[in-house]
Amino acid sequence: MKERPTLARLAEQLGADLRLAPGADTEQVPTGLNTLQDATPAQVSFLASASYRRFLVDTRACAVLVSEELAAECPVSALVVENPYHAFALATALYDRTPRPAPGIHPAAVVDPDADVDPEASIAPGAVVEAFARIGAGAVVGANCVVGESSEIGAGTRLHPGAVIYHGCFIGRDCVVHSQAVIGADGFGFAPHRRRWTKIHQLGGVEIADEVEIGAVTCIDRGALGNTVIGRGVKIDNQVQIAHNVQIGDYSAIAACSAVAGSATIGKHCTLAGGAGVVGHVTVADGSHITARTLVTKSIDSAGSYSSGTPFSDSRNWRRNAVRYSQLDQMARRLKVLEKQLEALRQPGRDGEKD
Amino acid sequence: MKERPTLARLAEQLGADLRLAPGADTEQVPTGLNTLQDATPAQVSFLASASYRRFLVDTRACAVLVSEELAAECPVSALVVENPYHAFALATALYDRTPRPAPGIHPAAVVDPDADVDPEASIAPGAVVEAFARIGAGAVVGANCVVGESSEIGAGTRLHPGAVIYHGCFIGRDCVVHSQAVIGADGFGFAPHRRRWTKIHQLGGVEIADEVEIGAVTCIDRGALGNTVIGRGVKIDNQVQIAHNVQIGDYSAIAACSAVAGSATIGKHCTLAGGAGVVGHVTVADGSHITARTLVTKSIDSAGSYSSGTPFSDSRNWRRNAVRYSQLDQMARRLKVLEKQLEALRQPGRDGEKD
Amino acid sequence: MKERPTLARLAEQLGADLRLAPGADTEQVPTGLNTLQDATPAQVSFLASASYRRFLVDTRACAVLVSEELAAECPVSALVVENPYHAFALATALYDRTPRPAPGIHPAAVVDPDADVDPEASIAPGAVVEAFARIGAGAVVGANCVVGESSEIGAGTRLHPGAVIYHGCFIGRDCVVHSQAVIGADGFGFAPHRRRWTKIHQLGGVEIADEVEIGAVTCIDRGALGNTVIGRGVKIDNQVQIAHNVQIGDYSAIAACSAVAGSATIGKHCTLAGGAGVVGHVTVADGSHITARTLVTKSIDSAGSYSSGTPFSDSRNWRRNAVRYSQLDQMARRLKVLEKQLEALRQPGRDGEKD
Repeated sequence: MKERPTLARLAEQLGADLRLAPGADTEQVPTGLNTLQDATPAQVSFLASASYRRFLVDTRACAVLVSEELAAECPVSALVVENPYHAFALATALYDRTPRPAPGIHPAAVVDPDADVDPEASIAPGAVVEAFARIGAGAVVGANCVVGESSEIGAGTRLHPGAVIYHGCFIGRDCVVHSQAVIGADGFGFAPHRRRWTKIHQLGGVEIADEVEIGAVTCIDRGALGNTVIGRGVKIDNQVQIAHNVQIGDYSAIAACSAVAGSATIGKHCTLAGGAGVVGHVTVADGSHITARTLVTKSIDSAGSYSSGTPFSDSRNWRRNAVRYSQLDQMARRLKVLEKQLEALRQPGRDGEKD
Repeated sequence: MKERPTLARLAEQLGADLRLAPGADTEQVPTGLNTLQDATPAQVSFLASASYRRFLVDTRACAVLVSEELAAECPVSALVVENPYHAFALATALYDRTPRPAPGIHPAAVVDPDADVDPEASIAPGAVVEAFARIGAGAVVGANCVVGESSEIGAGTRLHPGAVIYHGCFIGRDCVVHSQAVIGADGFGFAPHRRRWTKIHQLGGVEIADEVEIGAVTCIDRGALGNTVIGRGVKIDNQVQIAHNVQIGDYSAIAACSAVAGSATIGKHCTLAGGAGVVGHVTVADGSHITARTLVTKSIDSAGSYSSGTPFSDSRNWRRNAVRYSQLDQMARRLKVLEKQLEALRQPGRDGEKD
Repeated sequence: MKERPTLARLAEQLGADLRLAPGADTEQVPTGLNTLQDATPAQVSFLASASYRRFLVDTRACAVLVSEELAAECPVSALVVENPYHAFALATALYDRTPRPAPGIHPAAVVDPDADVDPEASIAPGAVVEAFARIGAGAVVGANCVVGESSEIGAGTRLHPGAVIYHGCFIGRDCVVHSQAVIGADGFGFAPHRRRWTKIHQLGGVEIADEVEIGAVTCIDRGALGNTVIGRGVKIDNQVQIAHNVQIGDYSAIAACSAVAGSATIGKHCTLAGGAGVVGHVTVADGSHITARTLVTKSIDSAGSYSSGTPFSDSRNWRRNAVRYSQLDQMARRLKVLEKQLEALRQPGRDGEKD
């Protein structure tokens, strides 16, 4: 178990300038982190957004991560940093109590004799590691995970319980894969033939770079011919579907329930909000932001924010308006007719005298 | 295996008034339940909705759960109850043949010596129960489930095969968790920093009250600081995503493929139909009903039914109308102009004489 | 490991007419398949769509699967077939290197003594096969899969790691079930009673015909009374939700993230594109095609293509238009008023003289 830092040590670890409130003690050991409103005098808090500024004055936290501009308003000890939200993120690592298993292969794990498991890796009970798989130093293969033949799990990468990596997939270093995620299942490919479907066996693999996080139940399919590729530092939430041969650029983030269809390319530094969708074979430019539940149906050429969908309202009003949606084209044509007719009335000279 | 009840015993168990048809026998043992149309003379049926009333006259069921008002129309034995649909639900418990394993720890389960498993709990083969976890009396941990360190599974709760509970999560009594559900995976939290993402370790847990049902593959993430909380008697279907720090009020029901984003609060007695979505940080009032695939983008202050989306139609018509959607604002402006121009024509005196 | 075929043998296996380029050798053993653009001289390619025709002239592939019409344009050896895409699909089977485990029960599997496992079936480590389950010849139950009591897995069917089949479910021959798929979890049925929910135990099962493929994480719920039924040759992608008592007709295909609600009936030879939805109790005619993310809210009586949703655009324009959506009914009424008023102006005689 990591020991919790004193205020002085915390400041040091976060690169913060500690400005003690009167009577405060640099040797106090905060018990954890909390919001400005909920923090107890034993906890550290943070002011990451102007919208929470009003809570600063009444906070009971023992110290607050703040920017220089707002440090003077802090009624308790201030931990002055450039970017309080980032400092908060760094601080969470110090208070995280997620258990980390000791290195070694649990006797109830099943590791093929032809697998190559680093002695500093940890293989939990019920995990299955198949032939020619390689597990790097410090990697954790959680309980009941499966790592398929010839797949590779990079050093420091953690697979949470139940994650499944099919054969021939490559996961880089320092990744996190949450429970029930499935990496390398067959892409959905079938050729129609005489009104039936002939399977296109998926001959490619999956290639995941370093520092990628993959949420629970998320699926990343293997490529049909080449690989499906996830770039460095990409963060993917739960229940996301990444189809065969998709490419996701470095440092993009994809929120829960999003789906990217086959052979689509998402650029670097993109964000897809929850439930976003991208159809197959399109390209999304670097730095694009797709809002919640938007379906991207063609390529996006330049960075920006993109949306689709309709606003919600009470069902009665919604129904009235939704019905009109089916008449929109007709409405547009009627509008055009009206404009012409009205123009004729207003400028009777153009088409001939009215009187 | 439970023994099936006689008609008389069934009536007793459901609190029904049994009105035997001529020649019928209170000691008959029905073999099961079925719809009015499909029931055999060995089965019991039910009339739960007026729209099925027309099937009553021809039913071959040996007995029908009906309300007092319709009992007279029943051509076979009637089991008269106040609420036939509820009585049917109660009856299904009597005919359910879902296997229930005997208490005890299967030799192929892996239970940490520091875990606390009630002798009346059942731990199936392949299940992994980590240190300091507590499993209550009558609880069932299904095959290949994982219960993380210090988590608690209440008495009578059943985890179906493959469910994963991370560390530090609390599940109440008499809950059902279906296969591959993931409770307590990390919420999706990252702070942007120099165009990369710094992980915000998720320090909270998950707290699930009694009598909650959670569908297959559903994810309920652990909180960032405090807990994610699911109220008493909440029913959640398959493939639902509940993000960190969400609160779901008692007795709400959430249908498949719905998603609730971080820190949203859903009230009590709400229903979310299939594929509904709620964005982060909003509040949905008690008793709200969200229709299928609706995306709730701001707080709902009063009970009611809420919707979004467009009607479906054949793709050709849809395309014509959808194109106009992108012109809607322009159409609205043109409409406004027309109204002004027409008003000027109709009331020429207002803006000056026309002739 | 299957041996790779020579060009001559490949032609024979695909029923292709091999037309050797000058200097080419029927005994060459291609190493694999690739696209026209990416194929090396050691690989075979295919021309399946006119839109790729422009890549044919420069391909470096050793041979190309082409139709008779385009064979003359092929700069390398041609494998002339009737349907190049279908021939390509057949060829993928020859190059597929998905490991296939040897028959037998792994010592780390847990098979109930009352289960009936064919000696030619393969049961992987960590798999659990419950009492009275039947596993057919050549079937593969992958690592950490669970097959519930009295369920049946047909000959030649493969369950990938972690798939869970509840009790009393039937899966036909030559099916593929990907990881974390859940077959036979409870349908979502609860009767409201005094503002609480009473569970309707799901007494039916699941019946899956031959040659069905089911994607990773896909859920097919058991029926409430009768069975949920998936027809022959149906292909279902990842993260699809099939609710209780749904019927899917033969040879239909359902792309990722689609959902079909309770008691809906999908006809034969239908396709649902990604994220499509079908509400409960409706019927979709044979041969219907539902486009991406369309929600089918009532029955479809005749084959065709069906859509819903709005186009995406940059968020600023989208917002402007979306706001108008909530005014659509009002706009339609204003349009109607304008038409009447204008008509009165244009035909003043009708309602009375204007001058």
